[in-house]
Amino acid sequence: MPVFLDTSDADFEASFAALLSAKREDSPDVDATVAEIIADVRSRGDAALIDLTAKFDRLELSADKLAISEAEVTAAIAGVPAAERAALELAADRIRAYHERQMPEDAQWTDPAGAILGWRWSAVSAAGLYVPGGLASYPSSVLMNAIPAKVAGVERLAITVPTPDGVLNPLVLLAARLAGVDEIYRIGGAQAIAALAYGTESIAPVDKITGPGNAFVAAAKRRVFGKVGIDMIAGPSEILVIADKDNNPDWIALDLMSQAEHDESAQSILITDDASFGRAVAEAVDKRLETLERRAIAGASWRDFGAVITVRDLDEAANLSNRIAPEHLELCTGDPEELSQKTIHAGAIFLGQYTPEAIGDYVGGPNHVLPTARSARFSSGLSVMDFLKRTTLARMTPEALRAIGPAAETLAQSESLEAHGLSVTQRLNALND
Amino acid sequence: MPVFLDTSDADFEASFAALLSAKREDSPDVDATVAEIIADVRSRGDAALIDLTAKFDRLELSADKLAISEAEVTAAIAGVPAAERAALELAADRIRAYHERQMPEDAQWTDPAGAILGWRWSAVSAAGLYVPGGLASYPSSVLMNAIPAKVAGVERLAITVPTPDGVLNPLVLLAARLAGVDEIYRIGGAQAIAALAYGTESIAPVDKITGPGNAFVAAAKRRVFGKVGIDMIAGPSEILVIADKDNNPDWIALDLMSQAEHDESAQSILITDDASFGRAVAEAVDKRLETLERRAIAGASWRDFGAVITVRDLDEAANLSNRIAPEHLELCTGDPEELSQKTIHAGAIFLGQYTPEAIGDYVGGPNHVLPTARSARFSSGLSVMDFLKRTTLARMTPEALRAIGPAAETLAQSESLEAHGLSVTQRLNALND
Repeated sequence: MPVFLDTSDADFEASFAALLSAKREDSPDVDATVAEIIADVRSRGDAALIDLTAKFDRLELSADKLAISEAEVTAAIAGVPAAERAALELAADRIRAYHERQMPEDAQWTDPAGAILGWRWSAVSAAGLYVPGGLASYPSSVLMNAIPAKVAGVERLAITVPTPDGVLNPLVLLAARLAGVDEIYRIGGAQAIAALAYGTESIAPVDKITGPGNAFVAAAKRRVFGKVGIDMIAGPSEILVIADKDNNPDWIALDLMSQAEHDESAQSILITDDASFGRAVAEAVDKRLETLERRAIAGASWRDFGAVITVRDLDEAANLSNRIAPEHLELCTGDPEELSQKTIHAGAIFLGQYTPEAIGDYVGGPNHVLPTARSARFSSGLSVMDFLKRTTLARMTPEALRAIGPAAETLAQSESLEAHGLSVTQRLNALND
Repeated sequence: MPVFLDTSDADFEASFAALLSAKREDSPDVDATVAEIIADVRSRGDAALIDLTAKFDRLELSADKLAISEAEVTAAIAGVPAAERAALELAADRIRAYHERQMPEDAQWTDPAGAILGWRWSAVSAAGLYVPGGLASYPSSVLMNAIPAKVAGVERLAITVPTPDGVLNPLVLLAARLAGVDEIYRIGGAQAIAALAYGTESIAPVDKITGPGNAFVAAAKRRVFGKVGIDMIAGPSEILVIADKDNNPDWIALDLMSQAEHDESAQSILITDDASFGRAVAEAVDKRLETLERRAIAGASWRDFGAVITVRDLDEAANLSNRIAPEHLELCTGDPEELSQKTIHAGAIFLGQYTPEAIGDYVGGPNHVLPTARSARFSSGLSVMDFLKRTTLARMTPEALRAIGPAAETLAQSESLEAHGLSVTQRLNALND
């Protein structure tokens, strides 16, 4: 059974703090193993990838089979039903349209001192996307990672996806093709991250690695951070729904369950200003848990981490939401737009009763790779910005250097950096001659 | 002596590759020590900070002395000479003006399906800035870290700065005050990072930590990443100057030395299309190294990591520059603007002979916290974006849900996520009733 809290209860603060700090995931300490795997790939390259893939994925490869060929992709996706292809295409188009709007603008201006200042954005040259194998191998995630990279202008986009026992996922391959992915490798785990970061004989290194993965993948990404860029280390998913009584309890129950069915460590929380509505949703959840295909997973998540919180009013709801900083936030209230102005720490907000979170997972347009585990306090979902970097520009005219150079000389002297100061002084002397 | 390379030489490629992969820094493996320090601060809070500060900084504190009080700051900065104060103020004003232009815009639009989409930016609530003690305690770095945070709208901005033997740095304190810093703590090392990330009785935790530091600080930042956001792990600094023969060799020499004087691990590289100009610069460097105050450091850096590379033309220079992906790039050529269009992997570009890199360190306006160690391939200098996060927004009307909901149902089915699909289906059923 989930916890039922009420902000009017005397012990609410303690219970809420416990909910916030609940450890939902046992991260096994795989760091030593991962360090060995990375060292192995760095020293033996393809040979290490082949050995590790035989060991972990029960798949015998050779160097020329590390990549999934264009022909294999074409053959695999030929069998995708038309409806699924059309749905993926619609999703890809909408995700592309949304992310194209994220492209930031270059800037250049002349300031009052006469200095020409600005910045310029450019794409990362090569990026690698990790796609998990097995149950969590989601074609939608391929679109969500690959499309922003391509919109940003990444020239070379490589995917690694483990294929245990050699089984390909046609929808993952179709998503990769729709997104314009350039290379696909059938490797996984820490060895795939090592190959993307350091390169092997067959796989050129990339500059940035994104995508979700298990504990080995997360530890490997953490280790190669600095050598390459990485996205966030994703934790288990979570949803917060703020709903008033004018909602269908079953809809809200399904929204909560669509997070819970991902993972036993997922967390679904309802905040409502009507206690009886909260009970109605909990009953609707129980009913759904009788029949849902993934009821074992969803039920465990709801039992261990689910919560129904009754608040006095929606301002209180907004405050709690900001403390939770949820990955997904659904606002099913009379004026969701107004409430969203107050819920500022959230990865993605879904407004109104016709915007179930599942829309955002697939076809809404915004990215579904979002900050988990309260990291929406300081980070954002995946975007084109993750595949761009900014170069700042500065050009001094002689007049500008005369105006601001002396201050630089003074500060260089303060910091005992003589050459810094002299590099300005010599130029000013020449200008004043 | 620095290495002299020429792209016409037969062995150029091998020599250049060796230059690129040269390990300039021995990172001692302090991770185990840092893990202990973090655990200590998490379990004992202020008491741990007090013990560790006594041990590392030879300074006896009590809980009420962890913070440097307003009165102490006022007293310390009273002695700052007017010229230094004016220079810092000019720098602060220029940095603020530049970073205010970086503020990104919110967006909202209705797409062809009738969906209302958009995003909204908001500031991190609390940020912590690490300021090194001793020689590398630069007031300019305080401005460069703190001003973007305040421009972004960070409400609570805390600084930690170790004060070995209790000695305060008045200019650091003045920079903090000019930048609007809210709290200053006299602690350093991994213990400061732990306090900022997890909080103690006297120090509230923050959401994001930025700022440079030694190996202990870097290892601690790596460890708390995820619990809080961090900026890049900074490596030793570097500069690349691309200059043609129409430059004063001494100016270029000083620009190279203003990087080299930072650190024996710093790297200064000159690329020129005129071999004799390259030799003239090397001679000018040698001359400067006879008298520079920090000649021991600058000389070691130049000897061990300096390079003069002669190229056939400026296109070749741009290509090499992109492979180096320098932190600082100076373009002293006839048309630096044109060349800058080709040098896309660089943290900051300084255009023309009147823009020595030192201007950018202090008063140019752009940030001087920049990606080192070739990470300009995938990351950017510090900016207001580091203190902001983006929440995506989506609102479906009934019409929009009718238009795109069926595709979401199909994809949910493909991914065997039944509740996802049902959350859409139940709403569509109600709309179609």
